[in-house]
Amino acid sequence: MAEGDKIVPELLQEGVPVKEVYATAAWISTHRTLLDRTPGVRVTEVDEHVLKQLSALTTPNQALALLDIPAATDITPGSLKGTVSLALETIQDPGNLGTIIRIADWFGIRQIICSPDCVDAYNPKTIQATMGSIARVRILESEILPFLQQAGVPSYAATLHGNDITQFSKLEEGIILIGNESRGLSDAVIGASTHKITIPRLGGAESLNAGVAAGIICGRLLI
Amino acid sequence: MAEGDKIVPELLQEGVPVKEVYATAAWISTHRTLLDRTPGVRVTEVDEHVLKQLSALTTPNQALALLDIPAATDITPGSLKGTVSLALETIQDPGNLGTIIRIADWFGIRQIICSPDCVDAYNPKTIQATMGSIARVRILESEILPFLQQAGVPSYAATLHGNDITQFSKLEEGIILIGNESRGLSDAVIGASTHKITIPRLGGAESLNAGVAAGIICGRLLI
Repeated sequence: MAEGDKIVPELLQEGVPVKEVYATAAWISTHRTLLDRTPGVRVTEVDEHVLKQLSALTTPNQALALLDIPAATDITPGSLKGTVSLALETIQDPGNLGTIIRIADWFGIRQIICSPDCVDAYNPKTIQATMGSIARVRILESEILPFLQQAGVPSYAATLHGNDITQFSKLEEGIILIGNESRGLSDAVIGASTHKITIPRLGGAESLNAGVAAGIICGRLLI
Repeated sequence: MAEGDKIVPELLQEGVPVKEVYATAAWISTHRTLLDRTPGVRVTEVDEHVLKQLSALTTPNQALALLDIPAATDITPGSLKGTVSLALETIQDPGNLGTIIRIADWFGIRQIICSPDCVDAYNPKTIQATMGSIARVRILESEILPFLQQAGVPSYAATLHGNDITQFSKLEEGIILIGNESRGLSDAVIGASTHKITIPRLGGAESLNAGVAAGIICGRLLI
């Protein structure tokens, strides 16, 4: 379920196979042209009271969409050659995961591997935090180690004790790895990575938010 | 009011003038040595039920501290020479503001100017999101334009239509400007800045979260 006046049109525009839309009469009227262009979608007019009952969020929107979770089974270790991917281990906060998906979309990363113990990428809070980017970034839930061992591309594990990120040049292919909000990446994943990277610290903070760290790393390695 | 098992010790350790601490017996016992080193602080033992009533957060902690908001009146346009500062215009979300304070602390920025219509930096949600960095970064609430006009240092306004941030070399002094979550910086602030900077976009996302953008910019300009 994707909720939001902004994300529902974005899903439709990007051609994500939406099955149903529940929305207010005003929303349907505003988006009539778009809905006419996507004839497979069943649209049901509901009032705000019903939307509030359907919503998983504390602040309901004018529209929500139901869609099948896109299969991402074609994301295999072999498919990562020549591209930059993100792999996330045990990200727990839906807002952080959504923020990271949005960062990936900004920097043109098209696929993210989420370890099975990450928060669900299709949690309504995650979807909302992606601000529509969930329509453009594909998510595979999978163990990460096989990708590190079989993809044959360099991998960059974010840790507090790696090599200064400013020493790396712009990536053309590879897997960027971000770990849990408080514990970081597991030793197994760090050990299997070809590079350990660290954002140098000039001040007093003990750590950075996982989404911010992902952004800074992408901002150094991808542009 | 600062809440949290981590932030209260951090405030005490950094010598922030805390007036009172309310905490559980277990917390006081664990932090006995630290409390003995800060004799001016009045400590009151309360049970979790009382803490819950005192707390402004949905998930109360084992300890909270009361402190005067530090005066920051010595942050003047003239004082910014030779340092890097951050100026925030109309940041509305307490979590974003807290995240940005934490980023500033990581990169060694010691002062932030917040426009008067920013969310309160001493809002309990903001303080919690700083993860203790509020103890090390000083915040001045002030109009931003006088700083741009009188500080005599370069200024870097984050916009969607500026110069590619990768073209700038490492800053030794200057003011980095971040604007409102949806509208960005005002035209007046952009116009008064010496540089307009943009994080190049490679993919489809329309924008980045304000905290993430601040992190990426610091990660390019300060390290």
